[in-house]
Amino acid sequence: MRILVKADMAYRFDVPSEVLLQIEAARTPIQTVMREALTISPGLALHRKDDLYTGERRVMFAAQGLVEIAYEAEVARSDTVAPLAGLTQMAVHVLPAEVLPYLNASYYCPSIRFQSFVLREFGNLRGGDAAAAILSWIAQNIDYRACVSDSQTTALDTFVDRAGVCRDFAHLAISLCRAVGIPARAVSAFACELDPPDMHAVAELYLDGSWRLIDPTGKAPLAGLVRVATGRDAADIAFMSIYGQGELVRQSFAAEPLEARAAA
Amino acid sequence: MRILVKADMAYRFDVPSEVLLQIEAARTPIQTVMREALTISPGLALHRKDDLYTGERRVMFAAQGLVEIAYEAEVARSDTVAPLAGLTQMAVHVLPAEVLPYLNASYYCPSIRFQSFVLREFGNLRGGDAAAAILSWIAQNIDYRACVSDSQTTALDTFVDRAGVCRDFAHLAISLCRAVGIPARAVSAFACELDPPDMHAVAELYLDGSWRLIDPTGKAPLAGLVRVATGRDAADIAFMSIYGQGELVRQSFAAEPLEARAAA
Amino acid sequence: MRILVKADMAYRFDVPSEVLLQIEAARTPIQTVMREALTISPGLALHRKDDLYTGERRVMFAAQGLVEIAYEAEVARSDTVAPLAGLTQMAVHVLPAEVLPYLNASYYCPSIRFQSFVLREFGNLRGGDAAAAILSWIAQNIDYRACVSDSQTTALDTFVDRAGVCRDFAHLAISLCRAVGIPARAVSAFACELDPPDMHAVAELYLDGSWRLIDPTGKAPLAGLVRVATGRDAADIAFMSIYGQGELVRQSFAAEPLEARAAA
Amino acid sequence: MRILVKADMAYRFDVPSEVLLQIEAARTPIQTVMREALTISPGLALHRKDDLYTGERRVMFAAQGLVEIAYEAEVARSDTVAPLAGLTQMAVHVLPAEVLPYLNASYYCPSIRFQSFVLREFGNLRGGDAAAAILSWIAQNIDYRACVSDSQTTALDTFVDRAGVCRDFAHLAISLCRAVGIPARAVSAFACELDPPDMHAVAELYLDGSWRLIDPTGKAPLAGLVRVATGRDAADIAFMSIYGQGELVRQSFAAEPLEARAAA
Repeated sequence: MRILVKADMAYRFDVPSEVLLQIEAARTPIQTVMREALTISPGLALHRKDDLYTGERRVMFAAQGLVEIAYEAEVARSDTVAPLAGLTQMAVHVLPAEVLPYLNASYYCPSIRFQSFVLREFGNLRGGDAAAAILSWIAQNIDYRACVSDSQTTALDTFVDRAGVCRDFAHLAISLCRAVGIPARAVSAFACELDPPDMHAVAELYLDGSWRLIDPTGKAPLAGLVRVATGRDAADIAFMSIYGQGELVRQSFAAEPLEARAAA
Repeated sequence: MRILVKADMAYRFDVPSEVLLQIEAARTPIQTVMREALTISPGLALHRKDDLYTGERRVMFAAQGLVEIAYEAEVARSDTVAPLAGLTQMAVHVLPAEVLPYLNASYYCPSIRFQSFVLREFGNLRGGDAAAAILSWIAQNIDYRACVSDSQTTALDTFVDRAGVCRDFAHLAISLCRAVGIPARAVSAFACELDPPDMHAVAELYLDGSWRLIDPTGKAPLAGLVRVATGRDAADIAFMSIYGQGELVRQSFAAEPLEARAAA
Repeated sequence: MRILVKADMAYRFDVPSEVLLQIEAARTPIQTVMREALTISPGLALHRKDDLYTGERRVMFAAQGLVEIAYEAEVARSDTVAPLAGLTQMAVHVLPAEVLPYLNASYYCPSIRFQSFVLREFGNLRGGDAAAAILSWIAQNIDYRACVSDSQTTALDTFVDRAGVCRDFAHLAISLCRAVGIPARAVSAFACELDPPDMHAVAELYLDGSWRLIDPTGKAPLAGLVRVATGRDAADIAFMSIYGQGELVRQSFAAEPLEARAAA
Repeated sequence: MRILVKADMAYRFDVPSEVLLQIEAARTPIQTVMREALTISPGLALHRKDDLYTGERRVMFAAQGLVEIAYEAEVARSDTVAPLAGLTQMAVHVLPAEVLPYLNASYYCPSIRFQSFVLREFGNLRGGDAAAAILSWIAQNIDYRACVSDSQTTALDTFVDRAGVCRDFAHLAISLCRAVGIPARAVSAFACELDPPDMHAVAELYLDGSWRLIDPTGKAPLAGLVRVATGRDAADIAFMSIYGQGELVRQSFAAEPLEARAAA
């Protein structure tokens, strides 16, 4: 599947600030970037912080005044999405070393606070069955609603408030999965059919020997996701981290399947 | 400096459990393991989870019943410890990519909660001067005391309680340093002269182009530390993580300089 | 119904301390103390802190060394227990002035944190129907289990942990009822048939013009409760508050219906 | 001293709501209301919830649509303000019964979280000396600043954030005083010379046999305060509690000494 993704952003920096930008499509075995263009105006010295191991792309720059950012890419994805149910939960001692940290609590995903809950609610399930039950519990118990959460909201808050946006859903799903012993991490992605269009926050679970993409909100088809960044929680995958002060001027993200457009 | 380190541990596992053991001396440019022996009884299938990039060593095994663990190593360290004051705080955009995650909040080190405090208390300082002021603040305001904290205690709790043990000191120092924009991470280490002897939790700050070791408790000389594991906080560097249930039978850690013994 | 209640307590105070004791049966329109005896050894100067308005009884003393406390009372209760379902939730503006504070959040009952949850879960219910649904939700979702909570555990913790003891059940029920607009308060009581025997923590809801007793644990018949103290949460109704330091030597509480014994 | 106080408020209630209004000057032995007028438009059925014991005045009404509230009173106060230093901290067992609840933690004043801190910081002080040291610590460590706190901010947050508004200062002072064993409560008051003019939140400490007024912000002279409501924390003393939904249209509070005006 070929997907066209676009980002258009403008921020004003009244004091000298530094910016970490994570909006470029990752280059992975199942995601090929056919062409892309990143334009930052005015021209600034760009410092690449790409992760060669994961293929994730990051760029930093020092900013002052108005900065406009445009990104466009055509991405080919060959992912096949398997149902979670039935997938094996691997014994911890056979997990790859780099997967182990994703079992630990992180700031937004305080999984150790949910161990009693998951034992009670999902204690008889393992692996993909437990993950599917967790996603079903979230779908039944958490409402998608803006303005109930902010940048400090953790999965514990969302568990109590029973509402949030995509990053809150991702944090709660990650927390509950880690609590049952399934490695889980946060993923940012362009998303086809997301309404309203935005950068999406989803998650990945390590089951049966590989990372499996899930969308705890159920708002976007998995096959239409273009992966950008991966991390322990929202802090690691923010599309823009500002060290200093920045003010949003405008911002939009879009993704659409190219075949569909070609066929039209 | 040559240091002899020893660990002697015994745990009983009443149900089948998995264990992640992080007690072996890391192999780094400034730390050479001259000889070592890790003995686990009974003989169990060991799964190495070493991190080839950092030289940190980890081993996992499935356990049931009584498990005894003995480790002994002779380590040569060539570290030179520089004073913090005056060390440059690097601009974020020139930090190496792998250092960036250590600016983010983690579960035990909720640095974003301290941004208002550090601005007020250390706002006119940068880099090594800020770090030195933070360590001085901790020395004056936090008491070393057992039994006020437990495995869920975060740096926020320690900031309020004003007391804790080495991991609490490390978490608070890491949190405050990240809040001022200095990358900071947790380190576990064998420690000469630590009283009582134990596995020690210290921290590292990324200043002036390299990681600088600090001991926020001030209880052990930096030159006598033998590094074991590194991570975002205590969850990553625990000397033993048990997936299942384990009961402590006995446990001791020791470190002593070999020259001193030879001279005696 | 006549009930015989007994308390037997011994504490050791190594440093001079002060003690607030709330173990005596309250004197209310529906609860008559037929006879009672409170014996504190050694003989100490007792300072009565009775609340003449509510009929609740409290005594304070300064203590040092071993203090033994014995209390025995025969109490006649004429309470008739009505089912909650159908009871009217009164408009706030017609509530008696002294009832209003029981709508507010307290330390152990942070009701404002649950407003989103109760709207989602019980939003279409009011009054006794809402209260009955809350008790049913607690019965299905919270386990009675010792050692998961301590003296700092709030209803928010219990909501997440899904387990606790009687005071945790009371705090959660009170929090959820206040969040739906029903005044709710904590009550300590001797309890017949409670297993194991102990001082019990229950709650009261203000519905249809009067306070209605509930036992969120469902472990003791309401008709067998002998009320002691009332307050916003556990802090107000503790059977013993120690200002200083005290060590438990022994402690037991018992309640039994006198008719049953007479008939035997 | 004679003080003229005025309140002018307008709120719009889009759904039928109930309102608890606490803006009228209390009638106490040291505060005499010479004349007053409360006007609520349109004319609504008013339900008085006055506390005859404390002399505090509260009124409730059901509201829909635009409601305008005007209050004006001339109040004579005979308070003499004594310095805190030297005032005796009473033994708990001689405190009046109605004072005891003000030693307990409340939602916004979680005093039990500060016991370790106060022991370390003020452990060698008692009574008025401890209270004076607490106020001095707050003056040195907390900044008066709007927009860092909201309606859910507790004293623990303020302790960490090191900034807040008058209610945050009051909550922190109350929490720390309760932690050292001094009964403390929240007080709302009209305040002369407060800049900008507003309803003020201050506190009272029970020392040497009576309640002593303090202003932890130091922003208004104590002699110019006209007491309105008293309670465990902000939840009890809010000038307007809305059960339903209300939108602020306008609101102002003012207080000025009458002598000064007469002399001008």
